[in-house]
Amino acid sequence: MTEILVIAPHADDESLGCGGTLLRHKSEGNNIHWLLVTGMSEASGFNEKRIAIRQKEIDLVAEHYGFDSINQLGLPPAALETLPIGTLIGGISDVINKIKPDIVYVPYRNDAHSDHELVFDAAMSATKSFRYPFIKKVLAYETISETDFGMKPEDGGFRPNVYINISSFMEKKLDILDIFESEMGEFPFPRSRKALEALATLRGAQSNCHSAEAFMLIKEII
Amino acid sequence: MTEILVIAPHADDESLGCGGTLLRHKSEGNNIHWLLVTGMSEASGFNEKRIAIRQKEIDLVAEHYGFDSINQLGLPPAALETLPIGTLIGGISDVINKIKPDIVYVPYRNDAHSDHELVFDAAMSATKSFRYPFIKKVLAYETISETDFGMKPEDGGFRPNVYINISSFMEKKLDILDIFESEMGEFPFPRSRKALEALATLRGAQSNCHSAEAFMLIKEII
Amino acid sequence: MTEILVIAPHADDESLGCGGTLLRHKSEGNNIHWLLVTGMSEASGFNEKRIAIRQKEIDLVAEHYGFDSINQLGLPPAALETLPIGTLIGGISDVINKIKPDIVYVPYRNDAHSDHELVFDAAMSATKSFRYPFIKKVLAYETISETDFGMKPEDGGFRPNVYINISSFMEKKLDILDIFESEMGEFPFPRSRKALEALATLRGAQSNCHSAEAFMLIKEII
Amino acid sequence: MTEILVIAPHADDESLGCGGTLLRHKSEGNNIHWLLVTGMSEASGFNEKRIAIRQKEIDLVAEHYGFDSINQLGLPPAALETLPIGTLIGGISDVINKIKPDIVYVPYRNDAHSDHELVFDAAMSATKSFRYPFIKKVLAYETISETDFGMKPEDGGFRPNVYINISSFMEKKLDILDIFESEMGEFPFPRSRKALEALATLRGAQSNCHSAEAFMLIKEII
Amino acid sequence: MTEILVIAPHADDESLGCGGTLLRHKSEGNNIHWLLVTGMSEASGFNEKRIAIRQKEIDLVAEHYGFDSINQLGLPPAALETLPIGTLIGGISDVINKIKPDIVYVPYRNDAHSDHELVFDAAMSATKSFRYPFIKKVLAYETISETDFGMKPEDGGFRPNVYINISSFMEKKLDILDIFESEMGEFPFPRSRKALEALATLRGAQSNCHSAEAFMLIKEII
Amino acid sequence: MTEILVIAPHADDESLGCGGTLLRHKSEGNNIHWLLVTGMSEASGFNEKRIAIRQKEIDLVAEHYGFDSINQLGLPPAALETLPIGTLIGGISDVINKIKPDIVYVPYRNDAHSDHELVFDAAMSATKSFRYPFIKKVLAYETISETDFGMKPEDGGFRPNVYINISSFMEKKLDILDIFESEMGEFPFPRSRKALEALATLRGAQSNCHSAEAFMLIKEII
Repeated sequence: MTEILVIAPHADDESLGCGGTLLRHKSEGNNIHWLLVTGMSEASGFNEKRIAIRQKEIDLVAEHYGFDSINQLGLPPAALETLPIGTLIGGISDVINKIKPDIVYVPYRNDAHSDHELVFDAAMSATKSFRYPFIKKVLAYETISETDFGMKPEDGGFRPNVYINISSFMEKKLDILDIFESEMGEFPFPRSRKALEALATLRGAQSNCHSAEAFMLIKEII
Repeated sequence: MTEILVIAPHADDESLGCGGTLLRHKSEGNNIHWLLVTGMSEASGFNEKRIAIRQKEIDLVAEHYGFDSINQLGLPPAALETLPIGTLIGGISDVINKIKPDIVYVPYRNDAHSDHELVFDAAMSATKSFRYPFIKKVLAYETISETDFGMKPEDGGFRPNVYINISSFMEKKLDILDIFESEMGEFPFPRSRKALEALATLRGAQSNCHSAEAFMLIKEII
Repeated sequence: MTEILVIAPHADDESLGCGGTLLRHKSEGNNIHWLLVTGMSEASGFNEKRIAIRQKEIDLVAEHYGFDSINQLGLPPAALETLPIGTLIGGISDVINKIKPDIVYVPYRNDAHSDHELVFDAAMSATKSFRYPFIKKVLAYETISETDFGMKPEDGGFRPNVYINISSFMEKKLDILDIFESEMGEFPFPRSRKALEALATLRGAQSNCHSAEAFMLIKEII
Repeated sequence: MTEILVIAPHADDESLGCGGTLLRHKSEGNNIHWLLVTGMSEASGFNEKRIAIRQKEIDLVAEHYGFDSINQLGLPPAALETLPIGTLIGGISDVINKIKPDIVYVPYRNDAHSDHELVFDAAMSATKSFRYPFIKKVLAYETISETDFGMKPEDGGFRPNVYINISSFMEKKLDILDIFESEMGEFPFPRSRKALEALATLRGAQSNCHSAEAFMLIKEII
Repeated sequence: MTEILVIAPHADDESLGCGGTLLRHKSEGNNIHWLLVTGMSEASGFNEKRIAIRQKEIDLVAEHYGFDSINQLGLPPAALETLPIGTLIGGISDVINKIKPDIVYVPYRNDAHSDHELVFDAAMSATKSFRYPFIKKVLAYETISETDFGMKPEDGGFRPNVYINISSFMEKKLDILDIFESEMGEFPFPRSRKALEALATLRGAQSNCHSAEAFMLIKEII
Repeated sequence: MTEILVIAPHADDESLGCGGTLLRHKSEGNNIHWLLVTGMSEASGFNEKRIAIRQKEIDLVAEHYGFDSINQLGLPPAALETLPIGTLIGGISDVINKIKPDIVYVPYRNDAHSDHELVFDAAMSATKSFRYPFIKKVLAYETISETDFGMKPEDGGFRPNVYINISSFMEKKLDILDIFESEMGEFPFPRSRKALEALATLRGAQSNCHSAEAFMLIKEII
């Protein structure tokens, strides 16, 4: 059985970046797992109602994907830099040792949101080949409104080299995203059906299919 | 009067990369000029009929844009590397000295087609500030099917930092492109209406408008 | 009316990086605004006298420029990494929403001082096109003694693509810098009149004028 | 049946870069094909005897690998830049259209030898997804004495992200390389058994196995 | 007298990265100094016994090298990001002002371990030419299991340009490393005699000697 | 005796890039050698008079430096790309094998002039450690009006890491440059005394001396 793990800094990153790919994995008989790094809490300034809504969204989304496990670290969003990196690495490492994934999807390091950078760095420590030999492939996904708004001058920008055909799963990906009501908006807002369709169309044109998700390969062992 | 020059390695590059921008410049009262570096000739293996069709396409396209001048160097496509770079620089420099453009649009250096690289390099020599002080801005455009298929490992990929809103000119851009019948195809072919619309939509989402063309600023003097 | 905002990690960065440009903006009738991210405080180890001197310097400098507003966040210098990035983003965002600038000047991300990196990252979050649609242009300036001492191996170094002619404002820029007495020194110390003149001369030679300030364009929407 | 194509600028590049991988592909039942871009000829300054020896080496090497086809373009070594790039693209494209490979191995663009750069560029044109939809994966291999002597400042150096375990094929790889007698030497000469073993050991340490070959993924479509 | 300083984030980094070079410096009559940035403490979760063993290892290693001074900052490993960068800079700066080194060896910024990044950044602040004019050369070393597992997409990877022949010191380097019993392992574990020998062999092949250590030059003043 | 070789694509590059350094080498008792790659000839479009003037300039400049040998390949300027790279490598290699330099100075690869790129690439082939073991150091120099006008998007720009103090040789460097009358101009022309002084001042501020020349280290073996 192939085990797939997606690491999402915030709920909806997994869907923006690899919703179609997760659906395709599931349809092909793989087990899929969700690791949510941050979470809303009263300590980090969210009220009870907002927290409850988010948890319902997460449960509903999980149901639609058919996730085989949900793993929530519940760390504070937009404040990961105040924790020792060891805390973040430890949390991710525990989930990885439990699931023993073959393939891991991670956010792109140079996204606008610094949580993505820290999650990427911690994930790299928690996937080193000599400590986690069961991992065969690590891929970075792109997150519309973050990856395309990353502005570090030393970064060339997200440059995909793996394309996954999600033509049969595009509609369902968009429907799932609509569950995160507060995150989606009207075009030209980037997290909108129209912008996401345009991105999938463009990634399709680059890989000769109708709709694709694109990734940067971090490491593969064959 | 503001003079605008677009340098196209091959006919259609100017439209794929900055068709909407040229139409907007024209609508705002600027003069626009077309420099076509290569051209079909019997010497470079095209038959008389093909050459005549292409010239008609060029004339028709020029009419639609309202170009204030067309400048054709007629150099052999896919063989620019066999000429001394001086020949290419000299040809471009002559046109630039004649037109004295304020703004120059050039292809992106790391496109898949090596003609784009050579035209970029020659254009850089022919726009040096201390020899061509009238040039105020140089911008590189993206060419679908070339820029997105550039694979040089040392290049981070095209990373736009200038966005031009072409919402009012998108339809006309696509209509003009349809004139180059042999160059356009059906999606998922990249040079198709659907792929071009997706690209403009995405560039719009990145710059908060409906349709945009995106550029990398090479140099601006204020 | 065009509103201009310069974001300075520490007092004097705005002058080293874009003093001449700010004076030119003011002379052309634009409003100019100063956002000072860090500030001396007893909590961060400065004595009362030093704090008072610095505040006087700031007031005097502001008077010379004719700043239309001064905005001081008062965060602790060389310790920004101990704050949640959200605090920094929030502080900058509030000022940006108040001023609604057309053009924003930010420090270069890869300067030697890590405060410049954090201010850059926070400024990128606080200038996203879909949240701050009034911002038309973001430019990174160079800070002598920081930008030229940035040593990150992944960074190619500051590579300017926008040059602003400040020939008429160079003397006044240097005079203003002399107000920050404790920051300036004798050449070959980098923050000296002679080194600053050399830099402006070199940027001039690159853009065909006598004295220039140079910038990297982060994003422009036209 | 999976078809594998290795493109070698010069005989021995295929073995230095992916000898073990080719042997593993063959042992797993794939068809393997060899495309040799340059060749010794009297026109390019080699005498008849040298040419005959090289042809014998090629035949013997092909026998050891069990290549399913050998394709020799016979272009002049160290003078590819004097040909129109179209000639190189055309030659490679013909072989690709004949073999219809699933996976293509190419040299790294930034190797010391400029033939590697030109072969890489031509191979990119001859593997575009919308013209060669049967190609599923393109990988760049490293060539000891060329990749490690590439000195372009704009290149970060070869940075592998795909590792193939060749522990069972390492000895045979080295034996095959010994056939190219004039190319191999005594350590510390780079093309020596000892240096090649060190490289495979290091790539193994990076991917948790005894001997590995390492690649940069150019493009994969799933 | 030439003073040499090696800055090690954790004990063993100095040996993995420049053990042979330090031995060669000593044999050539230079003074060598060790700056250990982090240290085990009960506060950072190590028990008394582990701390005592580590201190013995450090003393024994120092004896083998003949270090002229050991300087331990004792900062918490894997939690440097929770300290103000000023604390780290201050600690390193004090040692540098005491020793007044001619040559400083630092870890590579983009290693997998974020402590290496922070130590690099602080070391850059504490070696600025205009404050520490006695420093003539700064070099970054590579740390097997960290440098080769650095995965930042914006980094081209460690690209050495200085090679130091350590053929006469290789055996002693490996013997010293064996003192750090808990850090070394069996190949294909990267911190193993076999992997370290392979790396030195490869660096030798690149610089025409039997065993070499490789570095990236950060800055040299002649 | 230490032998120093400077490789200049065109006469004056050696002086712009490392005039002061050559004078310092000579004053310290080293032998210095000049390799001029291109040369004016009637075949490449120069008239007899121009050729004679240039030769006189070369002789006079050589006298001022006290060059121990002048080596002129006489290849056509701005047309090196039409020669097989082998011709260029062969010419440089012959000189290197004759002189057996310890240190080689080369132009920067990403200068505006493509002759610099080709000379750099050929020089890399002609300095490989396993063929030219006597070479201990290769450094790339910066050429005002070329290096600062290099615009390749994949290049971060010239980023110096070696600084040589030429305070005692600056005046003589500028006097020698004045011999190349047709190449020098009035500021803000880049090849002017004022711009060259500004550059040396800035490089001095970066390395704590009055005037410096700056280099990128390509390779050093110790």
